[in-house]
Amino acid sequence: MKVGFIGLGQMGAGMAGRLLEAGVELRVWNRSSNKAQPLVERGAQQVASALDVAEAGGVVLAMLTDDRALEDATRDLPERLGRGGVLVNLATVSSSEVRRQQQRCAQHGVSFVSAPVFGRPPAAAAGQLVICLSGNAAARQRLAPLLKPMSKAVYEFGDDPASAAVVKLCGNFMIGAAIESMGEAFTLGEKNGVARADMFRLFTETLFDCQVYKGYGAMVSSMNFPTDGVPPAILHKDLGLVLGEARRSLVPMPVAQTVENHLTTMIATGRGEQDFSGLVQVISENSGLRVPSVD
Amino acid sequence: MKVGFIGLGQMGAGMAGRLLEAGVELRVWNRSSNKAQPLVERGAQQVASALDVAEAGGVVLAMLTDDRALEDATRDLPERLGRGGVLVNLATVSSSEVRRQQQRCAQHGVSFVSAPVFGRPPAAAAGQLVICLSGNAAARQRLAPLLKPMSKAVYEFGDDPASAAVVKLCGNFMIGAAIESMGEAFTLGEKNGVARADMFRLFTETLFDCQVYKGYGAMVSSMNFPTDGVPPAILHKDLGLVLGEARRSLVPMPVAQTVENHLTTMIATGRGEQDFSGLVQVISENSGLRVPSVD
Amino acid sequence: MKVGFIGLGQMGAGMAGRLLEAGVELRVWNRSSNKAQPLVERGAQQVASALDVAEAGGVVLAMLTDDRALEDATRDLPERLGRGGVLVNLATVSSSEVRRQQQRCAQHGVSFVSAPVFGRPPAAAAGQLVICLSGNAAARQRLAPLLKPMSKAVYEFGDDPASAAVVKLCGNFMIGAAIESMGEAFTLGEKNGVARADMFRLFTETLFDCQVYKGYGAMVSSMNFPTDGVPPAILHKDLGLVLGEARRSLVPMPVAQTVENHLTTMIATGRGEQDFSGLVQVISENSGLRVPSVD
Amino acid sequence: MKVGFIGLGQMGAGMAGRLLEAGVELRVWNRSSNKAQPLVERGAQQVASALDVAEAGGVVLAMLTDDRALEDATRDLPERLGRGGVLVNLATVSSSEVRRQQQRCAQHGVSFVSAPVFGRPPAAAAGQLVICLSGNAAARQRLAPLLKPMSKAVYEFGDDPASAAVVKLCGNFMIGAAIESMGEAFTLGEKNGVARADMFRLFTETLFDCQVYKGYGAMVSSMNFPTDGVPPAILHKDLGLVLGEARRSLVPMPVAQTVENHLTTMIATGRGEQDFSGLVQVISENSGLRVPSVD
Repeated sequence: MKVGFIGLGQMGAGMAGRLLEAGVELRVWNRSSNKAQPLVERGAQQVASALDVAEAGGVVLAMLTDDRALEDATRDLPERLGRGGVLVNLATVSSSEVRRQQQRCAQHGVSFVSAPVFGRPPAAAAGQLVICLSGNAAARQRLAPLLKPMSKAVYEFGDDPASAAVVKLCGNFMIGAAIESMGEAFTLGEKNGVARADMFRLFTETLFDCQVYKGYGAMVSSMNFPTDGVPPAILHKDLGLVLGEARRSLVPMPVAQTVENHLTTMIATGRGEQDFSGLVQVISENSGLRVPSVD
Repeated sequence: MKVGFIGLGQMGAGMAGRLLEAGVELRVWNRSSNKAQPLVERGAQQVASALDVAEAGGVVLAMLTDDRALEDATRDLPERLGRGGVLVNLATVSSSEVRRQQQRCAQHGVSFVSAPVFGRPPAAAAGQLVICLSGNAAARQRLAPLLKPMSKAVYEFGDDPASAAVVKLCGNFMIGAAIESMGEAFTLGEKNGVARADMFRLFTETLFDCQVYKGYGAMVSSMNFPTDGVPPAILHKDLGLVLGEARRSLVPMPVAQTVENHLTTMIATGRGEQDFSGLVQVISENSGLRVPSVD
Repeated sequence: MKVGFIGLGQMGAGMAGRLLEAGVELRVWNRSSNKAQPLVERGAQQVASALDVAEAGGVVLAMLTDDRALEDATRDLPERLGRGGVLVNLATVSSSEVRRQQQRCAQHGVSFVSAPVFGRPPAAAAGQLVICLSGNAAARQRLAPLLKPMSKAVYEFGDDPASAAVVKLCGNFMIGAAIESMGEAFTLGEKNGVARADMFRLFTETLFDCQVYKGYGAMVSSMNFPTDGVPPAILHKDLGLVLGEARRSLVPMPVAQTVENHLTTMIATGRGEQDFSGLVQVISENSGLRVPSVD
Repeated sequence: MKVGFIGLGQMGAGMAGRLLEAGVELRVWNRSSNKAQPLVERGAQQVASALDVAEAGGVVLAMLTDDRALEDATRDLPERLGRGGVLVNLATVSSSEVRRQQQRCAQHGVSFVSAPVFGRPPAAAAGQLVICLSGNAAARQRLAPLLKPMSKAVYEFGDDPASAAVVKLCGNFMIGAAIESMGEAFTLGEKNGVARADMFRLFTETLFDCQVYKGYGAMVSSMNFPTDGVPPAILHKDLGLVLGEARRSLVPMPVAQTVENHLTTMIATGRGEQDFSGLVQVISENSGLRVPSVD
């Protein structure tokens, strides 16, 4: 039985590649069809529409940009999948989108499973993602052999597909919060004559000796933000979802609001092309420090 | 030549003990004199006043509660130490206190060195602290053999004794920010049916696999805050110093303000005896969750 | 030619009553039909569906709860109104709802006009509302005789119907901000032994001698929040719209976020029945003051 | 018996002038002595030191820049005034400065009274200030004939001289909060095509028809900030005092923090010469709007 895969951006292509390597037979589709070519060369079957990746009772994995892209691409998929089918979302979406998907899937006997991932494109290509998994228990079990080649770890969050979606959003918020707190600290240091790199080295070798602080901290320390990273609009969208969940769930999240505000300013002042960790430039500018102009 | 040590609380006692073990001869003093007894039994000489720990041209280390305690205990020390002496502050104080100390020391040819430490009492007793060091270069070199038995790492921040003080404050702020961000995330999860412990496990095994998130996260996850930890008044004081530096240096620090606000409420609502990581209870309560009463 | 009026809650009933008094012939509709009875007794014609209030080329006024209620009640109205018709929204809605309405209306040659109002039910009944008006110029001119009996002042904001919608949201935010700032100030005073009523009197007789500070300030001062006012869910919804506009327009609004957070906590802690000015109770509680329990 | 007056800046000169007009005999002193000349021409007696304005059992009024200036100028005044004397502070100072003054005065049988004022220099010159009064009841009564020619209204806050100091700080915060909230609202409007002047007109003719919104709103609306107003450093200092009181009193004040942050950025980005209402430029810039450069 072939597995369907929708969405072949940098992340999706890496993940689909890992599945092919593991011997999984794939039907793939992407909105811009040329993205499928490298995977076809490695054995994937390209189909003409998102709908055509599905077969009755089969599994479809989707890695799309946002709520709307997922909504648009999967509208009629549950019907095609039918009883016993499984539709899996690998991307960062809102819990309300999960609810919509879950209801539509249920009408056709399909299980909707959330499996959003942590990791950047190189981790996707190397099968080193971290996956948050929640949804129908039998469906989760069925997915295990597919998730394995894509990930270094799978964390389970029970039967409600909304759970993993919320956890993923929380993780993205916590990354933003870590960047923000380094930005505030390093700026205070800089204005007191302490080199950003010295603070970075201290903290990431001791108290904060972990991936997020090391990886993003290197950029926050050097104030050098690549333009081939993840643009601020992506995290801005995610924080919009976080704050939407917070509003619905009645949870005040002042730090999430602060991160959102700095991303807003980053975009509004013309820095939309840089990696989102460049949000710390806003902290520097609001402290009167000069940062490289983007004009 | 004997070294002076002032301030024998949980932290100071551990540090002085390590010096004794390393064969350093110590003169010690503490406001409540009984705290000195265990060290006397291990070979330290107890003296009657803070002033008497000093000898001409010698070194005095101080580990006191706050700006005022340092100010009070060391007022006449620089004169007693005289030319070539070194006065070392191991505690968390403001940069303005450092400036005052530095000026007074300079009048008597004494070098004032900042060597604030990261670590809780067990790390102090085990010689596993992390030290931030700044001040006169020759004095720093002279201190090396004293700092070694107390620490697992020493990070240098140049000739200005204010630098290490600011770095230490930044670290305390970053710890508070990490706790706050876990608190916001775990609360959002909890209100969406995700167990706090599950989020804690995911994040501290992957993205945030480091000491601060693991250590404080365990408390934030279990919502169990010990009463023998560091009380919120201590971090509240530190965040007051951070925000004082920020005000003086013209750096807006909205996340530091949020952490301060939650510590304020923690204290104002009668939770002053718990470990400061209990500040996340404020986030829960503001979201309508019941947390154990303190009445 | 008869004018249509949809939505006969406290506000709508007052406004429709003023139109009847001014001699305007009305067709009225409300979801719960019994609300129409008092207006029927005063000469209004009650119809069976929202659609039936309209006549070709006529005017329909709508005063409904939120985006969705407006969306649901007016879905087919533009077609029924047809070329030359005017659909007027009197309520607080998002600019994206305005855009949707405007597009749908345009397809049928109908002008969509925004005319949201400031004022509580007694002002509606007395024709003392303040109206923000924007939309097609000819349509605005045509509406003048209808708006006059409902209002003490009409402020014009040009041809774009989204403009008045944004202005109305800004006003609601500014009311919330004024309440929040009194709450912070009065609480600081109270904790320093200054009676809230004394500060209220000073400020509202001098610097802040205006309607919002006097009206809401009386409640903030007495900490007595009626249960027949406007519940916090309404302002919470409005601040959600404000922050949605801010997100879309890339405007950081930290004070709006603070007001939203306190409304969130007000609702989450079981105070949803009180007037929204009760959000200041959250400030008091976060300062450790006891406020009357709602359990 | 002559009354002493210390501090003849724009405010102090206006107030002293009113006293002279009312027939009060004054001894005056100012750090830059030339400021006294116009008052001498109107009958005041200039003395050589702050101390010399006092006579035994008399009254001294002080209108100085900040805590430190008051502290420095009045250090030995209570002793000179002696039993029955009254020392009156007219400026914005912290409650801890009030406590220090009160203690020192008490040692010499002097009453320390707080009488901080609201109003700009023209109001001082015209005797149209609003005065917040607190302190010993007999002393307050004795001051009545002196306060009358300076003010249009006196509000009493009881026997504790700290009370009026806190009230004055709260007022300054509320002014800043009103400016901030107009800034956020007008910026959101502007980014949605609504002219700032149109929103200003609506709000200040209706909901916010009062002095603070009209006066500061005119500047916020035109984005034209005079350089002969009150510089941001003054309100930044006041908000530092407000937040200091809040910290001591355990009151979280997030809106006060926001206002402080924007003043911080205003100063840090080189706008220290403009009127403090220019803090709204920070909101505009953080939204990507261009505001006139200050370079």
